[in-house]
Amino acid sequence: MSTPTRRQLANAIRFLAADAVQAANSGHPGMPMGMADIAEVLWNDFLSHNPNNPGWFNRDRFVLSNGHGSMLQYALLHLSGYDLPIEELKQFRQLHSKTAGHPESHLTPGVETTTGPLGQGFANSVGFALAEKLLAQRYNRPEFEVVDHRTWVFMGDGCMMEGISHEAASLAGTLGLGKLVAFWDDNRISIDGTTTGWFTDDTPARFEAYGWQVIRNVNGHDAVEIKTAIETALKSSDKPTLICCRTVIGFGSPNKAGKESSHGAALGKEELEATRKELEWNYGPFEIPQEIYEGWRANGAGTLRQAEWEQLFDKYAKQYPKEAAELSRRSHAELPEGFEAAADAYVAKLQAEGLEIASRKASQNTIEVFAPLLPEIIGGSADLAHSNLTTWKSSKTAVGHDPDANYVYYGVREFGMTAISNGLARHGGFIPFDATFLVFSDYARNAVRMSALMGAHAIHVYTHDSIGLGEDGPTHQPVEHLASLRYIPHNDVWRPCDAVESAASWKAAITRQDGPSCLIFSRQNLKHQARTAEQVANIYRGGYVLIEAEGGAPQLILIATGSEVGLASEARLKLQAAGIPTRLVSMPCTDVFDRQDEAYRESVLPKALRARVAVEAATSDFWLKYVGLDGAVVGMTRFGESAPAEKLFPYFGFTVEHVVEVAQGVVKG
Amino acid sequence: MSTPTRRQLANAIRFLAADAVQAANSGHPGMPMGMADIAEVLWNDFLSHNPNNPGWFNRDRFVLSNGHGSMLQYALLHLSGYDLPIEELKQFRQLHSKTAGHPESHLTPGVETTTGPLGQGFANSVGFALAEKLLAQRYNRPEFEVVDHRTWVFMGDGCMMEGISHEAASLAGTLGLGKLVAFWDDNRISIDGTTTGWFTDDTPARFEAYGWQVIRNVNGHDAVEIKTAIETALKSSDKPTLICCRTVIGFGSPNKAGKESSHGAALGKEELEATRKELEWNYGPFEIPQEIYEGWRANGAGTLRQAEWEQLFDKYAKQYPKEAAELSRRSHAELPEGFEAAADAYVAKLQAEGLEIASRKASQNTIEVFAPLLPEIIGGSADLAHSNLTTWKSSKTAVGHDPDANYVYYGVREFGMTAISNGLARHGGFIPFDATFLVFSDYARNAVRMSALMGAHAIHVYTHDSIGLGEDGPTHQPVEHLASLRYIPHNDVWRPCDAVESAASWKAAITRQDGPSCLIFSRQNLKHQARTAEQVANIYRGGYVLIEAEGGAPQLILIATGSEVGLASEARLKLQAAGIPTRLVSMPCTDVFDRQDEAYRESVLPKALRARVAVEAATSDFWLKYVGLDGAVVGMTRFGESAPAEKLFPYFGFTVEHVVEVAQGVVKG
Repeated sequence: MSTPTRRQLANAIRFLAADAVQAANSGHPGMPMGMADIAEVLWNDFLSHNPNNPGWFNRDRFVLSNGHGSMLQYALLHLSGYDLPIEELKQFRQLHSKTAGHPESHLTPGVETTTGPLGQGFANSVGFALAEKLLAQRYNRPEFEVVDHRTWVFMGDGCMMEGISHEAASLAGTLGLGKLVAFWDDNRISIDGTTTGWFTDDTPARFEAYGWQVIRNVNGHDAVEIKTAIETALKSSDKPTLICCRTVIGFGSPNKAGKESSHGAALGKEELEATRKELEWNYGPFEIPQEIYEGWRANGAGTLRQAEWEQLFDKYAKQYPKEAAELSRRSHAELPEGFEAAADAYVAKLQAEGLEIASRKASQNTIEVFAPLLPEIIGGSADLAHSNLTTWKSSKTAVGHDPDANYVYYGVREFGMTAISNGLARHGGFIPFDATFLVFSDYARNAVRMSALMGAHAIHVYTHDSIGLGEDGPTHQPVEHLASLRYIPHNDVWRPCDAVESAASWKAAITRQDGPSCLIFSRQNLKHQARTAEQVANIYRGGYVLIEAEGGAPQLILIATGSEVGLASEARLKLQAAGIPTRLVSMPCTDVFDRQDEAYRESVLPKALRARVAVEAATSDFWLKYVGLDGAVVGMTRFGESAPAEKLFPYFGFTVEHVVEVAQGVVKG
Repeated sequence: MSTPTRRQLANAIRFLAADAVQAANSGHPGMPMGMADIAEVLWNDFLSHNPNNPGWFNRDRFVLSNGHGSMLQYALLHLSGYDLPIEELKQFRQLHSKTAGHPESHLTPGVETTTGPLGQGFANSVGFALAEKLLAQRYNRPEFEVVDHRTWVFMGDGCMMEGISHEAASLAGTLGLGKLVAFWDDNRISIDGTTTGWFTDDTPARFEAYGWQVIRNVNGHDAVEIKTAIETALKSSDKPTLICCRTVIGFGSPNKAGKESSHGAALGKEELEATRKELEWNYGPFEIPQEIYEGWRANGAGTLRQAEWEQLFDKYAKQYPKEAAELSRRSHAELPEGFEAAADAYVAKLQAEGLEIASRKASQNTIEVFAPLLPEIIGGSADLAHSNLTTWKSSKTAVGHDPDANYVYYGVREFGMTAISNGLARHGGFIPFDATFLVFSDYARNAVRMSALMGAHAIHVYTHDSIGLGEDGPTHQPVEHLASLRYIPHNDVWRPCDAVESAASWKAAITRQDGPSCLIFSRQNLKHQARTAEQVANIYRGGYVLIEAEGGAPQLILIATGSEVGLASEARLKLQAAGIPTRLVSMPCTDVFDRQDEAYRESVLPKALRARVAVEAATSDFWLKYVGLDGAVVGMTRFGESAPAEKLFPYFGFTVEHVVEVAQGVVKG
């Protein structure tokens, strides 16, 4: 083979993809075969990265929002020299391979974000591009563009149809993310067939309506057209760019190209052979000629690129030592020295003060104290800043060019917001928090799941946490949301009972770097609880004995969270008075409590003591996990109602009398 | 007062709204004050309805997608003569009033759909308009336009920002819903303030990109401009219309108009008085002059309108008795005579046949049998027809004008799809089902909740129900979704274990007319289970003894659902062989089982027998509800993996050996 043509380079992707799908007899060959030429031009001529160091901070970010075409990304990573050997490609979609069905960022070097659930990768990419913009405007100095990289995202018709594409594209336009470039794989095929029956948008016009630069009618199989389009994209300063690429799905397959049959199943051995003939690819499965590898390898260029950047950064560090140190610290996801001590001191101070405020207010007070210590905090709310209480004195909008920008007015876009948060978190250099009412976590739900799945250090703040929201009624009153969020694996859900636990939950969320936390706050004021220093420390164990039984060993355990801790504590007094030694357990985070060792859990909830009552203004059934078949729950078993909160709590049984009555029933057995 | 002006008629809305919010000291005066003039023109000059009979089938549907402005709708209903007396308006947002914080369709006559969660009312309205179109093209005959009504929807900037507005508007354009008219309340204020910092779309251009007729720059406070715009909308035959109305939020309030301070809180007594002066409204709170009432009352016109339609329908019924009978039956939500018997016969036949197929295939087979009996079925899937198996031999696309159209290719729009389903269900005349992978129920989640809250008869089909999905990996493998859907109040979730339970779950979902059902199906084949006729009947009780313990009273109960029933049944044999009399309970629907009387539940799960093991390839913790602190669960406690299903089940402990081991541990205690 002489020097390979661009088409031959692209064909390497096509066959790695088609052969891997064939070997697995599972997967999606059509998209990689359709987008191979685009990917080839982008990766070989433009992408600034270093395969030897996938974590190099100033690399371009590449996102495959149409993640079912994962073999495209694996082929690119393999060919350009990432640590993803051919053996891994042969193990596509097999248990414990690094080539999962969809790209997973915690699994595969060079995968920036986990994709598959359509549209979210695109929204992640808005987060990546926003991260770059904010870091650049904070840290760059004349002649020192130490932060200077682009975000490239591939997206298909499916991403375009999803609502989240609207939310993310709209916000990207408003934020002026000029370094974001999206490639639309306009192949007019989705799983159900030709898209004319369900997707007739004028997509270029739609994106222009968002303030994007749109490059229309690019032949996605013509390297020159692709290159020209990308060069045009590079010239945009404050508009994100959409490059509309007409492609043929399954390009090269004589009988399946342009058809949905190439989308989601192996081509079949015969068709694969026919495709080899069609594209004149005379190599066996997983066989890549050395010349092709040489045409792709980016290790040398990448190392050089990083070395040049490091030189620049060293000079920058000499001239701007404070900025360099801070950026370096942030890029390594290290908290500032002293943060934990400061947080502990603040929590201790709150314990001493005994404020009785809403936990959303306690949250805002905490942000006010923590955010100035943490320039990596980037906050935001979906148009509920003054209800969620998520702004603080020095919060500044991300729109515009303020170097201190640290707040995103997300608008009414819960799902986009949360996926953008995931992008900010995965970019590095940021600890993002987003916010909405707890009930509207529903709108964002799969993005919360994706936070957890990829272990993104994102913090989701949800206020108005129960019927305590009051008059807005059942459409706005969460019931099942607490339990549902707790059931997302690897997701820590905190529902603090007072200002102290609220601040502690923020500390826990900030220091939990390998996964997301949901912080659930009340609209209404909450009572302060007394604690020893040891009890304060035990907050971080998720559940702890808040008030021990008096007058003998406990005969009953009350377990409560959030606004119901105050109620349970009053009920406990009555029960004590009625001669029942009662322990009160505060359980702000069941996820963390469940991770404690058995001895600790036993010390809080002794197996032998079955007289247990849980109190939480949310799904009752969740708590049967802790109270068992002999216990009881004072909780919610239906939707709420529209009325003032002080009417609703008694109406739904959240009174001292009712808790006492239920508890006495349980003790009697 | 002489004959009131249009502005005076509109001011009645403004003050009913502002005074009710003031009385409640809670609510949103700004929107009703801003949209009052639009509403006045629409309701007084165009809306075809009958306040005496809110259920008149051929009425126009009016939807308030910006539902926080609920007082607008209550004022309209009250003024035009619905059964919503002034006393109810005085009780705005109070417990058990008919004037909840947000409009709730099960509570208030004339409210077509429950709104508040932004964007969903708009998507519902697409469902309403689609319902009208499909009924019209099936039942109308020359000179007999027995189905002929419009859908009008009010939406705000919040609805516009939400992703679901993209999904619904895009599909409405493709479906050519010419009788849908949306009013955009373009007041450039959202909760966080002036929208320029987060919402800069060219919304008219966006809707034109969807194929809508867009009427720009209408002064929302000028009755003539509004009327002209609506007349233009009426001329559209196959394009939905967006009327862009420039309005001032809180119109009339001297100090709060045009500001977010009028959005979500009472104006305050002083400002209310100032507003009275500004608008020259010399009446006290809740005081409406008779002339104003007369200007609004629509009872007479409505009765006449309905009478004329009934005349037309009577003639139609003579000429087209079959069509008239069918339409009438459907409009009354009556199932065809004989449906239940036919369904029972089909289930009995399946029990006899003993097919071993995937439950998604069993679902498709059932649709194939039931759909021809039920012209009210309107199916659909979010671009997964061939994976969900939701098409059938006589399914026909809703795009175009086929009188037999009964299927919507929703495209990749899960949330829009589900909210459109709710609209179809709330319109009447349809039993809609929608479908996607179970994991992507997340995208639709709040619309599922809304189905349940408003008691919509919608069926949500979710296939690929566990790690059994295999290679697509954890992004596509549901874990927490079963439990989370079960926790939505009033939502019945079925996970059948074989073809028999699958068909039965369809029957249950079709006959459950006061709420939604989620039907959860497997990708992979499932074993057939033997049953007596009594056991078949007990499927409809949600949980039942599938195989009784042998050789003595049960010492152990295995509880399983779906694909794990086959596994549990094999494990039971081993346990029996090991001398442990073991009962196997199949629990296809925990929601229905929990509604059974205590005696029945006791007969299935006797309180005294605590040796219980639940087996389900989903969130373990959910099952602690049934197995208690002394039982155990073989379930999922983390995300899945990408691998073939036959590798994953053993990897996660779903083997006969592991179930037996866990069960023996439980029996030993």
